Amino acid sequence: MTKSEFKYIQSLSQKKHRDAEGVFIAEGPKVVADLLSGSSTAPVQVYATEAWLESSAAQEKRDLPVMMVSEAELDRISLLTTPNQVLALFKKPNRDNLKLSGTISLFLDTIQDPGNMGTIIRCADWFGITQVVCTEDSTDAYGPKAVQASMGSIGRVAVEYTDLIEKLRKETNLSVYAATLDGKAIGSLARIKEGVIMIGNESRGLNQELIRLSTCQVFIPKTGGAESLNAAVATGIILSHLI
Amino acid sequence: MTKSEFKYIQSLSQKKHRDAEGVFIAEGPKVVADLLSGSSTAPVQVYATEAWLESSAAQEKRDLPVMMVSEAELDRISLLTTPNQVLALFKKPNRDNLKLSGTISLFLDTIQDPGNMGTIIRCADWFGITQVVCTEDSTDAYGPKAVQASMGSIGRVAVEYTDLIEKLRKETNLSVYAATLDGKAIGSLARIKEGVIMIGNESRGLNQELIRLSTCQVFIPKTGGAESLNAAVATGIILSHLI
Repeated sequence: MTKSEFKYIQSLSQKKHRDAEGVFIAEGPKVVADLLSGSSTAPVQVYATEAWLESSAAQEKRDLPVMMVSEAELDRISLLTTPNQVLALFKKPNRDNLKLSGTISLFLDTIQDPGNMGTIIRCADWFGITQVVCTEDSTDAYGPKAVQASMGSIGRVAVEYTDLIEKLRKETNLSVYAATLDGKAIGSLARIKEGVIMIGNESRGLNQELIRLSTCQVFIPKTGGAESLNAAVATGIILSHLI
Repeated sequence: MTKSEFKYIQSLSQKKHRDAEGVFIAEGPKVVADLLSGSSTAPVQVYATEAWLESSAAQEKRDLPVMMVSEAELDRISLLTTPNQVLALFKKPNRDNLKLSGTISLFLDTIQDPGNMGTIIRCADWFGITQVVCTEDSTDAYGPKAVQASMGSIGRVAVEYTDLIEKLRKETNLSVYAATLDGKAIGSLARIKEGVIMIGNESRGLNQELIRLSTCQVFIPKTGGAESLNAAVATGIILSHLI
């Protein structure tokens, strides 16, 4: 591996370079295999050890742009504490103007933690949600930590970054659920087939204007002492009751 | 701050030293205030900047064993990437032989990730669960990352480490729910006031013997592509339906 390749891979840990190149990093056999099998994420370059090249995931794929690397080289380029056989660069899908009617979308307002972002996308994927729309100041779903936390779900979920308020204002006749601390208890609601479910920032919750634009505020009843729930846990609970 | 104090605090990032000293670390105004207000966790020593000492949390507490430190000193002892006003050492409660009848307990089988452990404890606390029992090879709930992820809930939830299989075998007439990939859909179950809810390892799930000892297997219906859910998210969903 050349020095410039090494530098290029390292640069992709920064959002501005991912955006400029339209490329993101995924690591490990599980996540890479999941993304290779997806349709929306094309591999740009795969750096793999001999062990991975002999695995079924590699054998099944022909015409893969692979470069074999040593364990030491993988160690150098990997962003994980425990590098794991393969690091791959994928084309970053560009999503905009996702249509909201006829499906269920998840809106994320200023989610800051990459681990939460990835876990939320994994959770959306579990419940069959294929589109997530984030405020522009949310953490990048294609950042390395988010990609790893999504466990490959990032290849099955379209993620758009835009102004949620403007996007919602264009819609009429859509059910819009806002996760807040009051309103209707989550267990009392009927399941939905179409609509928007909005989750707020880890500490501040949802923007007031987004709450005003919702058609229903929902909350998760609390019986204990914790002040709040983790944003990904709250998302999972709400989706499990609504979908 | 003396060199030996600094070394002592650093040593507490390791489990063997936390166990030997019976002390754990908590950081930041939110988590420290929460633990100071709890009854089960007594402060051993608080290292705080002037800003924290002027805050209401500090003013309310008399006879607190506080040492004022500079920002630079806090930087040196802090385990956070962004040190935040206060680091405190608390007495680690020693829990064993938690009684299972008359209440709801959460059993954790080999949870490995400290962030997941803390998030699960926070989630248990939200739903009013006051006792969590873990296999001996689970990650330490009093480790720094777990404590921070629990957001102070570690002070309200008793955590015991023991052999779950032996503990369950001693019980009769207790409802025991095992989170698995089949059995009854979580939405079809009645809410409970007593019993055990068991959550398995992040990748392997629950031990087969624990599943055999359960009275009911439950699963979270899946409609999308993700292979699994994050352990903390799964815990949240199950608790929200059962409690």
